[in-house]
Amino acid sequence: MSTYDELLKISEQLRSMERALYLLAWDERTYMPKGALEGRSKTKAELSSLYHKKLTSEKTKECIEKLNKESKQAELDDVEKAAVREMTRDFERKYKVPDDLIQEMSKVSTKSQSAWEKAREKSDFELFLPHLEKQIELKKEVAEYIGYENEPYDALVEEFEPGFTAEKIESIFEPMKKELSSIVSEMLSINKKPGEGVFKGKKFPIEKQKSICRELAADLGYDYDHGRLDETVHPFTIGMDDDVRITNRYSEDNLTSLFSLMHETGHALYEQGLPPEWYGHPLGKRISMGFHESQSRLWENFVGRSQEFMDYLFPKLQSEFSNLKDVSKEDFYRRINRVKPTFIRVEADEVTYNLHIALRYDLELGLFREEIEPEESKVVWENKMEEYLDIVPEDPSHGVLQDVHWSAGQFGYFPSYALGNLYSAQIFQSAKDDISGLKQNIYEGRFQQLREWLRDNIHQHGRRYKAEEMTKRLTGEGLNENYHIEYLKEKYEPIYGLV
Amino acid sequence: MSTYDELLKISEQLRSMERALYLLAWDERTYMPKGALEGRSKTKAELSSLYHKKLTSEKTKECIEKLNKESKQAELDDVEKAAVREMTRDFERKYKVPDDLIQEMSKVSTKSQSAWEKAREKSDFELFLPHLEKQIELKKEVAEYIGYENEPYDALVEEFEPGFTAEKIESIFEPMKKELSSIVSEMLSINKKPGEGVFKGKKFPIEKQKSICRELAADLGYDYDHGRLDETVHPFTIGMDDDVRITNRYSEDNLTSLFSLMHETGHALYEQGLPPEWYGHPLGKRISMGFHESQSRLWENFVGRSQEFMDYLFPKLQSEFSNLKDVSKEDFYRRINRVKPTFIRVEADEVTYNLHIALRYDLELGLFREEIEPEESKVVWENKMEEYLDIVPEDPSHGVLQDVHWSAGQFGYFPSYALGNLYSAQIFQSAKDDISGLKQNIYEGRFQQLREWLRDNIHQHGRRYKAEEMTKRLTGEGLNENYHIEYLKEKYEPIYGLV
Repeated sequence: MSTYDELLKISEQLRSMERALYLLAWDERTYMPKGALEGRSKTKAELSSLYHKKLTSEKTKECIEKLNKESKQAELDDVEKAAVREMTRDFERKYKVPDDLIQEMSKVSTKSQSAWEKAREKSDFELFLPHLEKQIELKKEVAEYIGYENEPYDALVEEFEPGFTAEKIESIFEPMKKELSSIVSEMLSINKKPGEGVFKGKKFPIEKQKSICRELAADLGYDYDHGRLDETVHPFTIGMDDDVRITNRYSEDNLTSLFSLMHETGHALYEQGLPPEWYGHPLGKRISMGFHESQSRLWENFVGRSQEFMDYLFPKLQSEFSNLKDVSKEDFYRRINRVKPTFIRVEADEVTYNLHIALRYDLELGLFREEIEPEESKVVWENKMEEYLDIVPEDPSHGVLQDVHWSAGQFGYFPSYALGNLYSAQIFQSAKDDISGLKQNIYEGRFQQLREWLRDNIHQHGRRYKAEEMTKRLTGEGLNENYHIEYLKEKYEPIYGLV
Repeated sequence: MSTYDELLKISEQLRSMERALYLLAWDERTYMPKGALEGRSKTKAELSSLYHKKLTSEKTKECIEKLNKESKQAELDDVEKAAVREMTRDFERKYKVPDDLIQEMSKVSTKSQSAWEKAREKSDFELFLPHLEKQIELKKEVAEYIGYENEPYDALVEEFEPGFTAEKIESIFEPMKKELSSIVSEMLSINKKPGEGVFKGKKFPIEKQKSICRELAADLGYDYDHGRLDETVHPFTIGMDDDVRITNRYSEDNLTSLFSLMHETGHALYEQGLPPEWYGHPLGKRISMGFHESQSRLWENFVGRSQEFMDYLFPKLQSEFSNLKDVSKEDFYRRINRVKPTFIRVEADEVTYNLHIALRYDLELGLFREEIEPEESKVVWENKMEEYLDIVPEDPSHGVLQDVHWSAGQFGYFPSYALGNLYSAQIFQSAKDDISGLKQNIYEGRFQQLREWLRDNIHQHGRRYKAEEMTKRLTGEGLNENYHIEYLKEKYEPIYGLV
């Protein structure tokens, strides 16, 4: 067996373990009985440890060292080189961190998440503070082991957005923040509440929502032969190659479920668009978290919350829900695009969303640059919230304690959400340029062309191209926040009568 | 860490992998999308291989060799000795078989099962014959590697019934067959069809059946905090320590679902009765397949199909199903205890059931003793069917091709089903002796005392005691088929008017 084939075999074995871990995670969040947490934790810990051992084994190291030699590289074609590059990255990020530090992180995370849950419940930041401090300390250590270009945070963000650094993110986020803040304050000054009353006092039977969602996912191109749709508290998508599962949640008070469904379907179409011959292959994965998010946001917002899509969907909704008979399509459209500053990120509209992220980014970067002390986090959060959205949370459970990420040690993750929104604007513009009649397609409920375009141009390449290269291939330029800003202006000015 | 603690750690790790494998199997049979089979097979193969490597590792071998030395044994208490004994058994059964043979068996089984499916579909024994021959050949090899007392079949049956041999099984099955045959032919000569028409032409809404089953399992003591009930084609129970799941199937034409539910609940109560401090411990498992089956049969037949239970259940059924209003409890009781020779084992009543097993046992033992040639299997089957049940299947899909076991190489498995029935009769007699008012309890729907008796006397001991020892502890004697025969006579004579 050639060294390259050996590497492919290791990749396949790792992916098998990953699929098992993913199923354990899916089950834990859908059907696992509540008393099964202890056994489940042990099972996951054992498999994670086996995965780690395999990825950082002497065998893997040997293969990777050999394949990175100049003489070997010369024998490889472009796909093979990319495969070696990605496996090398995966290997190094784990190999460089000592086992005892990994074990400590795992233990600290368990305690920290449990402390965070209590702290959030009691809305008491002080309960979480020592755990936040510990997590930051450990992640700084990790950053030193992994290495970085300019500053420790770079090593963390690289986990989620390969090729990105704090500096690069700042160069995008700074102008974005200014633009978004100015759009938001302009909107708020108008004090208009579009579509007010569309959902008020109405009930939307959940079984009907479920059947509409089920059909909608299929219409968008989701393949139920290789997936399934279940209910959860926090919707998520899990990709296991030929088995890509989505989940959704439903409230009878509104129709938010339609958009969370489209969000998860966007993720799922990415996973289902990966080429089957690359299942288990080092390249058979998404480019980055941000790219994944771009696919969910594109379907949720650029398709789902568009005028054209409402032309297609709203009559269907009216025929299912008699309480929408007297609602105009225009009001419905305005309601689902209402801009309203909120304390909670996951409830934010598409205009304010990236400001929620910018706030978190400012804060975590400040923590890692040691310009902010952990104990100041709560106050910094509140001040920034006021600065960006003109609201101040009354308690930390609606502020600094609202997200699970930091308690799990996931520093550097938040930017991906905002980058996803930025990518989606830029990608959608490119799709519009390439597909004549895209709006007409959406209007008529034909999504195949867009889906195929995304598949051909993005999904089928797995992570062969890094984010920056892929963005250039797709759009002729690197990531540019202006697409997002222009899209928002163009869409929201009519809604808010700003033109 | 002491060598014994090292062994416990290995046992914990193995159990974690096993829990993951079990969840993969559960999911495959409940919720997995149909297009996900390929990925799933790879995932299972990888985990199975990791499990095998761990169990047969040099580390495990070293621990086991050390702990079996006389000097070490002297340091161990009884539980520890039993733990070492069971781990040694597990280890040796795998370690002695060379890797390439295991891999060949795995490949052959895949092909063989697929050939069996086709053969059964087309009812063409010849399509399966070469695979049957290959499986027998491989299992003979395995038997040689593992070693045996008298004959190769002993090595196979030991997998499912530790401590049993062909000779021992024969000494039980031979008198059992004679007795059962005579009971059956007496019944058939009467040509009575008790409870005829109880289900005929009636429909029982499945949603109602489901809710009755859900409640019934809870009444018997099944703990939903550590389990769940789902629907499948072939009901099964899967035990993952603090997560024991049952499944059931439903037909609107009858109420068989109640008894399959009680069967699976019986299995589940065994698993849920294992002591939590032994999760992952070498002793935290069932004694044997036969003992497991004894628990399911005890609840299904000795409780579920009893007069007392009907007193409890039937009024409930009548209030749920208005089409049972005109049916008498007595007729219902007779109907669910109808004895009717059938071609299909899984549809057999409790009188004929063990004859189905005896037939398979005769055949597989004959094959391994080389007294029967594989190509004769179909005819031998038909002749034995006529001999035992006085019916002859018209095609092999209702005969020799009906069970999956041989295509999966599971020779030596069938006796467990019959042993389960025998154990359950003997155990139930012992429970009756110990629990005064057991019948009254059942009549009133109070199952706690019986369940606790089973837990205290059987479940909580895991596999500390081997089957023979456990039987003696429970009943003062070894396995004795007469309890089964006496039970059947006592129960069925009134039903068939034989007294």
